[in-house]
Amino acid sequence: MAEGADQTRVPFVSFLSDYGRADEFVGVCHAVMLGIEPRLRIIDVTHEIAAFDVRAGGLALVRATQYLPEGIVLAIVDPGVGTERRCIAVEVDNGYLVGPDNGLLAPTVAMLGGPRRVVALTNARYQLEAPGPTFAGRDVMAPAAAHLAAGVDIDELGERVDAATLAPGLLPLPRDENGVIVGEVLWVDRFGNCQLNIDPELLAAFRAGPGDALEVRLPDGSARRGRWVHAFADAKPSELVVLVDSYGLCALAYDRRSAAGELKLRAGSAVTLAPPEAGR
Amino acid sequence: MAEGADQTRVPFVSFLSDYGRADEFVGVCHAVMLGIEPRLRIIDVTHEIAAFDVRAGGLALVRATQYLPEGIVLAIVDPGVGTERRCIAVEVDNGYLVGPDNGLLAPTVAMLGGPRRVVALTNARYQLEAPGPTFAGRDVMAPAAAHLAAGVDIDELGERVDAATLAPGLLPLPRDENGVIVGEVLWVDRFGNCQLNIDPELLAAFRAGPGDALEVRLPDGSARRGRWVHAFADAKPSELVVLVDSYGLCALAYDRRSAAGELKLRAGSAVTLAPPEAGR
Amino acid sequence: MAEGADQTRVPFVSFLSDYGRADEFVGVCHAVMLGIEPRLRIIDVTHEIAAFDVRAGGLALVRATQYLPEGIVLAIVDPGVGTERRCIAVEVDNGYLVGPDNGLLAPTVAMLGGPRRVVALTNARYQLEAPGPTFAGRDVMAPAAAHLAAGVDIDELGERVDAATLAPGLLPLPRDENGVIVGEVLWVDRFGNCQLNIDPELLAAFRAGPGDALEVRLPDGSARRGRWVHAFADAKPSELVVLVDSYGLCALAYDRRSAAGELKLRAGSAVTLAPPEAGR
Repeated sequence: MAEGADQTRVPFVSFLSDYGRADEFVGVCHAVMLGIEPRLRIIDVTHEIAAFDVRAGGLALVRATQYLPEGIVLAIVDPGVGTERRCIAVEVDNGYLVGPDNGLLAPTVAMLGGPRRVVALTNARYQLEAPGPTFAGRDVMAPAAAHLAAGVDIDELGERVDAATLAPGLLPLPRDENGVIVGEVLWVDRFGNCQLNIDPELLAAFRAGPGDALEVRLPDGSARRGRWVHAFADAKPSELVVLVDSYGLCALAYDRRSAAGELKLRAGSAVTLAPPEAGR
Repeated sequence: MAEGADQTRVPFVSFLSDYGRADEFVGVCHAVMLGIEPRLRIIDVTHEIAAFDVRAGGLALVRATQYLPEGIVLAIVDPGVGTERRCIAVEVDNGYLVGPDNGLLAPTVAMLGGPRRVVALTNARYQLEAPGPTFAGRDVMAPAAAHLAAGVDIDELGERVDAATLAPGLLPLPRDENGVIVGEVLWVDRFGNCQLNIDPELLAAFRAGPGDALEVRLPDGSARRGRWVHAFADAKPSELVVLVDSYGLCALAYDRRSAAGELKLRAGSAVTLAPPEAGR
Repeated sequence: MAEGADQTRVPFVSFLSDYGRADEFVGVCHAVMLGIEPRLRIIDVTHEIAAFDVRAGGLALVRATQYLPEGIVLAIVDPGVGTERRCIAVEVDNGYLVGPDNGLLAPTVAMLGGPRRVVALTNARYQLEAPGPTFAGRDVMAPAAAHLAAGVDIDELGERVDAATLAPGLLPLPRDENGVIVGEVLWVDRFGNCQLNIDPELLAAFRAGPGDALEVRLPDGSARRGRWVHAFADAKPSELVVLVDSYGLCALAYDRRSAAGELKLRAGSAVTLAPPEAGR
């Protein structure tokens, strides 16, 4: 095997966190991992998950996962740092996930076929000596990811954990209520588009299709008319549209304007889609 | 040829966008490219172009281009995503540019000697299957950049396009009006410095040189006295200065204060430079 | 020596600045370095140091340094760009630091055992030709870092400088005043935690230990009761706590809330820790 080819076989670490970039947290985690495995390559998925927002982090990870190369996922949104919550490594079919055991990893583990082996990161030999207990990303989880990338067996990192004891990930499900679909906003992106937890196949119940009108009911009790279109630019100026977004879910959008700003929505806001009251 | 040397010959991809870093858009594009060509190395030029601001993106790309290594430029500011606008790859003398056909690439293509071959990215074989049409960066353009880096011929990516049909890039030109130079702000940087579209050679008309005073006329009709200096720190406290910035254009600045904030300027604001009314 | 192993021996460049990511400054510096040494690998420590804040940059660098791999540190917070202040390269025991001579590097140089050789970056052969004098990071300092990584001897980069003439780094020391410890906030992190310049060993003077109460005196003259705890999550709702942070210094914190916001503190704010007035 040629050296160059060997090089490319060190797994990627895909890294997501709520650390932000204002401080040196992300850079230090990179440095710690590269100190352990200098050939490592790191993909920064995002580090701008809202502070402590485990649900948002879990959703971003689920969205990204299908595009990540095989290897290791390091995900850290950890409001319980320093407490009894465990740090874990989870083996899945094509790689490993490392993070806190607070539900952050759970939806992605499920999407990847479920856990094979799970360990709690308790072996101090694979951790940094820490001046304080508050930066487990740097001292415990980043080192574990790098050691896995370097070929350390997951069982070396700590004791086995029963997968049934892991914190669950809670993804909200939409429900059909008297012919309307009650859902919520999963994600507001940079452009203000509001991704809903509503699969477009659910809208088939309305016998609605692309081009048809829908009623969009908002948390304040008001309702707006939206039109189901193909792309952002199909919206007329100031027209609210519903479209299938790049992850295959329904989203509320305007052309080049923020739907979240216009409709006063944020992640978690309740949104109901209904057939239009008037005919079309 | 040694393996290590081979490795360094995989072209760099220099990546600019308006995706921001709050969402996982940039990380997913990295992942998609590295999934196609794992040896790839990516330079993030910036991803904080204001949303939909094609002109600002085009200007940032022109500024950066002379410093980028040979290889591939991937630039995405794409308000027309999902519409009829084309995604294109453009061959230039020493590399390739990939982006939407909306003028974003045009000034840089011109600076690099003009287009050789141009194709529309229509070959689905080099694209990801997309759940929706709204993330062409991930599904169409990033894959094209990675395939070019991996050695795929540009003609494989889609059908040839007549370069004369490409959207033009519009860069504002300054004009001489009765002995004053009417220009505008091209760019406000992090420090609040305002780069103008005025080449310092134009100021020779004033018979002015470093150390001399200039009159700076602002959009609100007011005028301020500025002094032509060498460096930011040559400005006295609260003194407005004009200097040649790091790209060779005139800029308005204060020492350690924001000229944009002080003068209420932003990209596109009209600014006139004139000889001082009083003698010197 | 195998090629693959050779590759990993090109030193890392750890890069910190106040450039932000909104402009292309950081990306262009990456490009310049990779143009000089394509095998280079760069760790972005952070680029969000507040503009011109030399002290904050120096503190972030000191915090990060112990975690950085051997190699080269490139640190740029440079309010005096274009003036007589020197750009320097400093050899330390296990690597090099490159930056402006304004105190930014000084605390880290001291932590790394002090300077061995110091040169001013005066050799134009290792610089870019600059259209203007205002981007010394791109034109002078990033090239120097890349040339050092590529194996150029430090003495090639410019003339030797007497280390005694370097600008000092000023780190504020706490003082004991009649049995209370007068310190200040060194750093407010993303989560609003306020790191103080107070080593927990100083609190031994209070005969206080984990679990005990402390009085926290604020700049506005008010005082609050804080409790010394182990981890953020040990704080009760709305309870101010003092803990040993991840760098081994005392920090003020709330659980999942911003201490800086709550107490109106920022870097440099005076904070006094005192034994509690009431018994415990």
